[in-house]
Amino acid sequence: MKSSNIVWHSAAVTRERREARNGHRAVTLWFTGLSGSGKSTLSHAVEERLFEMGCNTFVFDGDNIRHGLCKDLGFSDADRTENIRRIGEVAKLTNQAGVIALAAFISPFRKDRDMVRALLPEGDFIEIYVKCSIDQCEQRDVKGLYKKARAGEIAGFTGISSPYEEPGSPEIIVETEKNSIDECVEAVIGFLCQNGVIKQ
Amino acid sequence: MKSSNIVWHSAAVTRERREARNGHRAVTLWFTGLSGSGKSTLSHAVEERLFEMGCNTFVFDGDNIRHGLCKDLGFSDADRTENIRRIGEVAKLTNQAGVIALAAFISPFRKDRDMVRALLPEGDFIEIYVKCSIDQCEQRDVKGLYKKARAGEIAGFTGISSPYEEPGSPEIIVETEKNSIDECVEAVIGFLCQNGVIKQ
Repeated sequence: MKSSNIVWHSAAVTRERREARNGHRAVTLWFTGLSGSGKSTLSHAVEERLFEMGCNTFVFDGDNIRHGLCKDLGFSDADRTENIRRIGEVAKLTNQAGVIALAAFISPFRKDRDMVRALLPEGDFIEIYVKCSIDQCEQRDVKGLYKKARAGEIAGFTGISSPYEEPGSPEIIVETEKNSIDECVEAVIGFLCQNGVIKQ
Repeated sequence: MKSSNIVWHSAAVTRERREARNGHRAVTLWFTGLSGSGKSTLSHAVEERLFEMGCNTFVFDGDNIRHGLCKDLGFSDADRTENIRRIGEVAKLTNQAGVIALAAFISPFRKDRDMVRALLPEGDFIEIYVKCSIDQCEQRDVKGLYKKARAGEIAGFTGISSPYEEPGSPEIIVETEKNSIDECVEAVIGFLCQNGVIKQ
């Protein structure tokens, strides 16, 4: 390799250059809440709005993580922690790539969410508590999982046979039982504008 | 949640919409070769060119993977395979996000590289063999690793005490011993233009 090599090696596409070109900051929007609370629906609705605004985004959820990157993991406490750790690392890389990461996972344990928060640079982790009563989630039961959990067919089901630890001080709380999805989307977009992540 | 919920859920930012907006296809450029062959240098140089052309890109290499997503893995054959599997899964997600993934890893085993190829949709995996003789790599020894390997301080070092399996039919071969880095970059960019991944 010739000496031009050295010049080339210093050429780096940094996060700052990407963000400057994109016209928005890259952050991680972490949607946590019970199964059926509306995390996935809300994350995709927020992504749609951000995409229309010209932002680079990507949604990570059980569908694209559990069958791929984390298909070797089960649902023991240790495996749940490792699952969240990997998602956190991937979200971090996604942000470095200038892309807003939207992660929609029950992530029931506070220590796991705090681990991801600690993993990311200050201000990059935006915890969104998708709040909804267990009664309402069970009534919706979109995937029929609560029924199975009540029948004892699913072990360690969050809210039934495994705890959900509410966020202590999330950046955003949305209440999907009281507010429409549009109102919840507005709450998230409003926060991002106010905090200089995106421009109105 | 109100019935608007259902409408929202069908709203999806697809790979196709991202690619249309970006003006380029998202693929995975997989740089394989011996330690010191120039994989990392070349991947960053290619990224610089792509970025200047307006493309969305990201480089995955030992620096950002081994200390993060794969920090629980060592260098046994099984761990190397799992390392490559996870990178493959992340590259796949990166492509779904509309971003060109550049992966620079020795990835010495053919079966591991073929596993990634099989993981990705047809045509998304572009294998780039960064060819350079072991003598030349050892002479460069940028990180002093060959010296340590020869002294027996590193076990299972590719090319010394562990095999490197050359790609059978890579999409691109660049010879960093014979060609300048600029020429190697041109070879990659030329391939991407010819195959409709990017526009001239």
